[in-house]
Amino acid sequence: MTVYLVGAGPGDPELLTVRAARLIAQADVIVHDRLADQAILDLARVGVELIDVGKKPGRPTPQEMINTLLVHLGSQGLNVVRLKGGDPYVFGRGGEEAQALIDADIAFDVVPGISSAIGVPAAAGIPVTHRGVSVGFTVVTGHREKGGATGIDWESLAKVGGTIVVLMGVSERAVIAERLMAGGLAADTPVAAVRYGTRPEQNTLRTTLGELAEAPLESPSTIVIGAVAAFDFSPTAGTSVWARGV
Amino acid sequence: MTVYLVGAGPGDPELLTVRAARLIAQADVIVHDRLADQAILDLARVGVELIDVGKKPGRPTPQEMINTLLVHLGSQGLNVVRLKGGDPYVFGRGGEEAQALIDADIAFDVVPGISSAIGVPAAAGIPVTHRGVSVGFTVVTGHREKGGATGIDWESLAKVGGTIVVLMGVSERAVIAERLMAGGLAADTPVAAVRYGTRPEQNTLRTTLGELAEAPLESPSTIVIGAVAAFDFSPTAGTSVWARGV
Repeated sequence: MTVYLVGAGPGDPELLTVRAARLIAQADVIVHDRLADQAILDLARVGVELIDVGKKPGRPTPQEMINTLLVHLGSQGLNVVRLKGGDPYVFGRGGEEAQALIDADIAFDVVPGISSAIGVPAAAGIPVTHRGVSVGFTVVTGHREKGGATGIDWESLAKVGGTIVVLMGVSERAVIAERLMAGGLAADTPVAAVRYGTRPEQNTLRTTLGELAEAPLESPSTIVIGAVAAFDFSPTAGTSVWARGV
Repeated sequence: MTVYLVGAGPGDPELLTVRAARLIAQADVIVHDRLADQAILDLARVGVELIDVGKKPGRPTPQEMINTLLVHLGSQGLNVVRLKGGDPYVFGRGGEEAQALIDADIAFDVVPGISSAIGVPAAAGIPVTHRGVSVGFTVVTGHREKGGATGIDWESLAKVGGTIVVLMGVSERAVIAERLMAGGLAADTPVAAVRYGTRPEQNTLRTTLGELAEAPLESPSTIVIGAVAAFDFSPTAGTSVWARGV
């Protein structure tokens, strides 16, 4: 009788929270984005309705339709899990879904997930903060909104002094790099781009801000900009049962 | 035979990751900070050695001593869980511990946790990003480091355009507010301060940037600055078995 807005984390099913795993296992219906791996949906009970509203290139499900679907399912008294990659409130449009549910007087809860902005760099050996090196971090998207009145001031961001993590930034990386350098970041500022973070096929490309535009990145990648991007505290022991294929 | 640097999340034990819960249950020894709740340590096996290295006011455990302890325990072939509030790499000094373990050739892994910077605002009904309102967020600490060469440029941060989340910022809030307003943020910019986030005694204080210095905040609080701090998507259904006292 509740709609749960649930973060699925960056990919590895063991990085679900205990609550997320429990709610998925108890759900009557799961409305999910295009997730990193089927293994997360395998936690659901047999026969549970799975509704894929993943925004595929060229065939997007409008957000308004997803909101309406959640209200419809919630009003039927079902336990609904709205499962989203990463965290529901980090570029997940969870706030719009929460607002729609509140407006319709449908009970809801939000369950945070491990954001790719933090968990993916960690898996690649990069701490987003490090004493004496970076005392903060900014998470932004390279995705442009219509209008742009809420856009990031990249030149000011360059002066802040912490790590910059860009999600969905591969296609806009030339503009981002140019503006950050215009704001004062050096061309030799370390950059790391992590693809398939926390998954078995994870790989990291290391470059610099000056070379980012020409670097062979592929979507989706998590892009880390700043001194910590040169760090490599890559784990020397794998703990993921899933990643080992066990 | 591995040292695991594990994030415990913001407080609610159900916000542990599945992996964190498993590693805690399998640990031979747990080296932990002052955690929000004993319930997380209750997941450990009976008889497991629990070593509290929490940095208590007036009686801090030096980081160097913690590093040495982890290397010592790891070299004994034990399964060691180094349990930290939030995420190990978000002001957790996990990077220094990782470096010490790498230097000593001790196998290690890092397990991200739900950062208070994201999970605590969510529990209080505040999304750190929201389409059309905030296209990014910056996480900083109000804690001053010696030297200050790595300090945040608050005036530039004011111009970036996203949400600002300040951890450990209660005592420095007057200076922070002053510098953000000097950078151009309006005095009526919404501010929310969330104490005991995700726990049963959670409470939220709403104020503005201009009134932040005089607002009766108590440590520790997560401080959210920006338009989203006026939002209140407070969950209308509790999912936490723990918070309900069941």
